[in-house]
Amino acid sequence: MLVLLGCGVVANVALAKNKGLGGGFLMVNIGWGLAVFAGVIVAYASGAHINPAVTLGLVANGATEFGNAALGTTVAVNAVSVLAYIAAQLIGAIIGAVIVWLAYKQHFDEEPEPANKLGVFSTGPAIRSYGWNLVTEIIGTFVLVFVVIAFGGGRQGDGGLAALGALPVALLVIGIGASLGGPTGYAINPARDLGPRIAHFLLPIKGKGSSDWSYSWVPIVGPIIGGMLAGWSALVLLPILT
Amino acid sequence: MLVLLGCGVVANVALAKNKGLGGGFLMVNIGWGLAVFAGVIVAYASGAHINPAVTLGLVANGATEFGNAALGTTVAVNAVSVLAYIAAQLIGAIIGAVIVWLAYKQHFDEEPEPANKLGVFSTGPAIRSYGWNLVTEIIGTFVLVFVVIAFGGGRQGDGGLAALGALPVALLVIGIGASLGGPTGYAINPARDLGPRIAHFLLPIKGKGSSDWSYSWVPIVGPIIGGMLAGWSALVLLPILT
Amino acid sequence: MLVLLGCGVVANVALAKNKGLGGGFLMVNIGWGLAVFAGVIVAYASGAHINPAVTLGLVANGATEFGNAALGTTVAVNAVSVLAYIAAQLIGAIIGAVIVWLAYKQHFDEEPEPANKLGVFSTGPAIRSYGWNLVTEIIGTFVLVFVVIAFGGGRQGDGGLAALGALPVALLVIGIGASLGGPTGYAINPARDLGPRIAHFLLPIKGKGSSDWSYSWVPIVGPIIGGMLAGWSALVLLPILT
Amino acid sequence: MLVLLGCGVVANVALAKNKGLGGGFLMVNIGWGLAVFAGVIVAYASGAHINPAVTLGLVANGATEFGNAALGTTVAVNAVSVLAYIAAQLIGAIIGAVIVWLAYKQHFDEEPEPANKLGVFSTGPAIRSYGWNLVTEIIGTFVLVFVVIAFGGGRQGDGGLAALGALPVALLVIGIGASLGGPTGYAINPARDLGPRIAHFLLPIKGKGSSDWSYSWVPIVGPIIGGMLAGWSALVLLPILT
Repeated sequence: MLVLLGCGVVANVALAKNKGLGGGFLMVNIGWGLAVFAGVIVAYASGAHINPAVTLGLVANGATEFGNAALGTTVAVNAVSVLAYIAAQLIGAIIGAVIVWLAYKQHFDEEPEPANKLGVFSTGPAIRSYGWNLVTEIIGTFVLVFVVIAFGGGRQGDGGLAALGALPVALLVIGIGASLGGPTGYAINPARDLGPRIAHFLLPIKGKGSSDWSYSWVPIVGPIIGGMLAGWSALVLLPILT
Repeated sequence: MLVLLGCGVVANVALAKNKGLGGGFLMVNIGWGLAVFAGVIVAYASGAHINPAVTLGLVANGATEFGNAALGTTVAVNAVSVLAYIAAQLIGAIIGAVIVWLAYKQHFDEEPEPANKLGVFSTGPAIRSYGWNLVTEIIGTFVLVFVVIAFGGGRQGDGGLAALGALPVALLVIGIGASLGGPTGYAINPARDLGPRIAHFLLPIKGKGSSDWSYSWVPIVGPIIGGMLAGWSALVLLPILT
Repeated sequence: MLVLLGCGVVANVALAKNKGLGGGFLMVNIGWGLAVFAGVIVAYASGAHINPAVTLGLVANGATEFGNAALGTTVAVNAVSVLAYIAAQLIGAIIGAVIVWLAYKQHFDEEPEPANKLGVFSTGPAIRSYGWNLVTEIIGTFVLVFVVIAFGGGRQGDGGLAALGALPVALLVIGIGASLGGPTGYAINPARDLGPRIAHFLLPIKGKGSSDWSYSWVPIVGPIIGGMLAGWSALVLLPILT
Repeated sequence: MLVLLGCGVVANVALAKNKGLGGGFLMVNIGWGLAVFAGVIVAYASGAHINPAVTLGLVANGATEFGNAALGTTVAVNAVSVLAYIAAQLIGAIIGAVIVWLAYKQHFDEEPEPANKLGVFSTGPAIRSYGWNLVTEIIGTFVLVFVVIAFGGGRQGDGGLAALGALPVALLVIGIGASLGGPTGYAINPARDLGPRIAHFLLPIKGKGSSDWSYSWVPIVGPIIGGMLAGWSALVLLPILT
């Protein structure tokens, strides 16, 4: 749901002949924010996360259980469950990207510019510099995970996420996009970037160009570092934690 | 209320000499979202729905009662009640479209382009291709109904809607419009499209053109398929349902 | 607070050399919506209204008490209290408009166009036609008051307003502005239009033109008719009322 | 968090080669509002404020304790605690501004215009006139602090802030920015302006110009006056206070 609506808004704004063509950066921010909103609602019952950086940030924060305790859908945090969460997030992101391609099939066909097609799927830097791009992704993801933990009231069995409504996270993502999204397009989520990139690589998209694998590690490594730093920092900085 | 405010924002943005002329796609998204907001508030007391795709999606999801159980305004789900719901939705949509015409009467008179006039009432495709347009409407309506059911906590007597605040649905519709509205203008509601199209056909609008009946089945059939698919999928995919 | 922030956003968008110059119709909508938000919060403790059309709509709806019952700040509805409410609304609107002039003093001085100066204070029609302009104001105010009453759950001692959060009304006003504000600029509130018009008439604004008194009755009479029609209609149409 | 996201959105809109370049005044408003949203969430547990004008406004309003009573994180209001609050706010603002510089490092390097670089950090007037600029900052901050106190229900031990959700303050700041931000860029917070100005002065920003210290007192003195006036006025005007 996250990738379907999130990559969808980029398709609407960027691909030829769409009604939302040229809708602007704020419209993309709002579209991604509401994609998070829908994603969190759908994930609520199962206690799922939709971002590996959040999952790993909660591990760094010391979470012992994932899931929705109120609904009895919890699972112990260990290597298997963490890997299962991340695998599910990646699979969901690939499926979402395929559905975006179907919904915008004719507009992909009509769009002449390969870079606009890749831009629907994955992020890319405004000024390419792996080091500084990494810094920007670390900062953006740190803000996301730190505020999510602050909102959840600190370390909790379910990682604080069940207590967190979908709207606050959506607003936070809109804010991070508006405020820190300029240099790299704010992946701040490894699955959101890698999943659609795999879809772009595999799908028979007419006139597609390179999937830019040389940049692909930045929106994976940056969010993981930022999320885990946030989890550790929250242990120290949020006084309610102790 | 849905069609009055929803078609109203298109009139403001599309018809000559309006203060909101050229307000952009995001403004139309937000206007439709807030139209849903007002519509859901007004429908709350009676437990009404404002979208046949939602009504049929809840039937597919196994709802046995419509209405607001807390207020004692429930009705059993059967062929008669479903048809009555849909008929009321269609009548309301026609009335709303007539009032939009009255509110913007002079701007309809001043607007030279027939396509802009029809665009106030009904949706149309950016690239005409009945098959792909249908796919887009199915996907958009699937998202709407699936998330609505997820938010309501799954199958409930009143179809989950009484438990659903107006704001989340409004945000969801803004998100679907931004993210999946590019190719077809996101009807995602058969009554929202057919009712105003009937009004466009019947009203003595100065210089109006064709009501484009050849496309009219797409925003009816697509949302019905998408809504019912969502209802069935939710039975399988939302773990809390069983 | 309503007029200070509401007329303020128009000043920012319309007057020369402002940082928000040319910010667009949606920004004005959002500014007015958030002006209502701040106004309702400030009015909460005393149970005040900030719109004579709402006050009269609640009278038409059969309200017997105004104010905030939970805080013990209620007053019986009679000719004296209604006139006192409306007088206070008008005085507040005049004061708010004076403060807008102070906040934007230099930009009023620099702005060459008299119509832009009046536009900060009062509404005016896109196409002048008193009859159709009146229709538009009636429809817009009807929507406002009808949904406010629907949200409040129908007839209540305090007119439903204490039960109504500031955010829903703000969203509703953004929606009405986007959807029905094109032809007349949506006064939908007699005090919001007349108070600032009086301020425009009295203040020593450099290079100001006419205060357009010939139009001034439309945004007074239209909202009063629309509000009272909504109050009566709600008695019939909202099933919970009886 | 406030300054990181707030100054960040200005960087995105104003600095060369950013994806959000030219995003408009409304995007900046929304970015600052969501920066306040994130800031208030992070400050919740400790009962911190993020604006000296609010701190001093609450002192003027007669607060005897700061902090979150529900969490037991309160502190008595006295000269030491007020100075500690303000010092922490200033230090936080400086740190936030440094991180913005890191996140946008390459774009600062590429941006040719020194005024755009300073604009990321601190506010400046559209028309320079210390007297009228001061008036605008006083009015804007008055609205902020008065509505915050009204929302909190008046004088309370913790200054009403713990009872105040992050979303209403965020919306209020968006509204103040849209409505009163045109002439001076709405500092309405001395720490938000002075902290980043100090960072601009100290950081080795490529091609930076003057830090405009001659204007720097306006966004300090104006908000302090406006905030304290609001605190005193609320004692008289909000009936629930006594």
